[in-house]
Amino acid sequence: MSLLVVGSVAFDSVKTPFGEADEVLGGSATYFATSASYFTDVRMVAVVGEDFPETHLQFLKERGINADGVERQPGRTFRWRGEYGFHLNEAKTLETQLNVFETFHPKIPKSYADSPFVFLANIDPELQLDVLRQVEGPKLVACDTMNYWIEGKREALLETLKVVDILMINDGEARELASEFNLVKVAKKILALGPKILVIKRGEYGALMFNGKTMFAAPAFPLESIFDPTGAGDSFAGGFMGYLAKTGEVNDVTIRQAVIYGSAMASFNVEAFSLDRIRSLKADDITSRYKEFKALTFFESH
Amino acid sequence: MSLLVVGSVAFDSVKTPFGEADEVLGGSATYFATSASYFTDVRMVAVVGEDFPETHLQFLKERGINADGVERQPGRTFRWRGEYGFHLNEAKTLETQLNVFETFHPKIPKSYADSPFVFLANIDPELQLDVLRQVEGPKLVACDTMNYWIEGKREALLETLKVVDILMINDGEARELASEFNLVKVAKKILALGPKILVIKRGEYGALMFNGKTMFAAPAFPLESIFDPTGAGDSFAGGFMGYLAKTGEVNDVTIRQAVIYGSAMASFNVEAFSLDRIRSLKADDITSRYKEFKALTFFESH
Repeated sequence: MSLLVVGSVAFDSVKTPFGEADEVLGGSATYFATSASYFTDVRMVAVVGEDFPETHLQFLKERGINADGVERQPGRTFRWRGEYGFHLNEAKTLETQLNVFETFHPKIPKSYADSPFVFLANIDPELQLDVLRQVEGPKLVACDTMNYWIEGKREALLETLKVVDILMINDGEARELASEFNLVKVAKKILALGPKILVIKRGEYGALMFNGKTMFAAPAFPLESIFDPTGAGDSFAGGFMGYLAKTGEVNDVTIRQAVIYGSAMASFNVEAFSLDRIRSLKADDITSRYKEFKALTFFESH
Repeated sequence: MSLLVVGSVAFDSVKTPFGEADEVLGGSATYFATSASYFTDVRMVAVVGEDFPETHLQFLKERGINADGVERQPGRTFRWRGEYGFHLNEAKTLETQLNVFETFHPKIPKSYADSPFVFLANIDPELQLDVLRQVEGPKLVACDTMNYWIEGKREALLETLKVVDILMINDGEARELASEFNLVKVAKKILALGPKILVIKRGEYGALMFNGKTMFAAPAFPLESIFDPTGAGDSFAGGFMGYLAKTGEVNDVTIRQAVIYGSAMASFNVEAFSLDRIRSLKADDITSRYKEFKALTFFESH
């Protein structure tokens, strides 16, 4: 089933202890769409500037992504510059140039309005709500957010949370949103705000899923070489939503599998700068990594 | 099969955001032995002072622990005082009074010398080696250590590592021991030093097991109420070694199960101050928690 994503496209300049990359393709919608494209057909809404090269759009199309919703506006593309220490869980933002993203107001093409699966990447919660007004009764809506909106647009965010099915955020954001440290209590509080499912991303420590009935914990895949964690959360979300859209079924079995596919895509993502590793995966790579997750977590019952 | 533990007995004074406890029973050998006592018969070697009440020894005996190796020396029992913030992974030591522990020289009773399973808790690596000279070809030896010995007695520690089968330490210690940040590389380096198995304890993030062939990741159990993490690592080790000693088999199947039993015991341990929760568990409690770990981590193959 079709999967709509609304988010950012950016040029990232990133430095990690293992190298650096300058003005490479990034952005939440880009990472999400690329990751999800291995599972289902993806429709993408975002904005780029006049400086955005046709080759990048070409790449998205080659991945089967419908990029009709990527509008080009006068001005420069969104830019982000950041740095990571050895503890790759924490990015230090050095510079943000919103550029055309500052006045981004997502217009959902008519041909996208029937999208049954929707992912609202990390944008202004008012815009997230506005996107939902432009789609026709989607089957499943998930969203991301960040501290900036939790602090600065709390009321709008709470409105958005009332109407989304799944919230996917990192542990620091979840704790801030719930004003609570203990993650089990955090989950109870957040599920009471509207979402039926909460997925807490913990970077190198994996992910936790809460749905009010069961909990699911997935580790991050222990990798010998990690180059750049940028986009890992969005690649996770792309694998997660992509898999659900592919099966068309949302239940405890598929949600858990979706967390593993999300974790698998995130594990590929961090193996190279930008989208370099997830640009050209084979279906076999993903299946193998899924099996490796099984081997990593399996123990005999007793 | 019998399981020998050599370590500390202490009075702990602990403050956490959820309460405090003053001069309560603690120490690595105490936590380990209590936890392991639910699985197998345990032999304990430690030292206490003149101030150590008979009731505590009585408790150990009631748990079926052979405490003949707990010697009483003139002076006061080891005392530790510490504090935790909301991030319970990190203890801040406020005071350490070694007292009788300062001159502790473990004497293994003759009746313990045939112990097939041995756990060397966190003590001077020279003493760990000396303990091994006093036992007769054990089937499996595991040890713990800490930054203090990694920095101050590295050579002796490396000698110990040459002759132990399993090293169980936390992630910070593992990184320091290997002079390396990436945990997969850390594991390779440490396994090259002697141990056949490395278990890395990550507190609220669970545990990782490496044996050079497979990796196993277990989450910590997400709990709504955590009161005191003191002793969680030793309770983990007690459940881990206790289970292996019970089965008498050490292979990839039992090692993974042992990690889960260790995680289960650690999850009980943190639910109360001191040994209050693990003092009086029922066999059913442990079996149920094991099953809950299965429910927490299970996903369908694909």
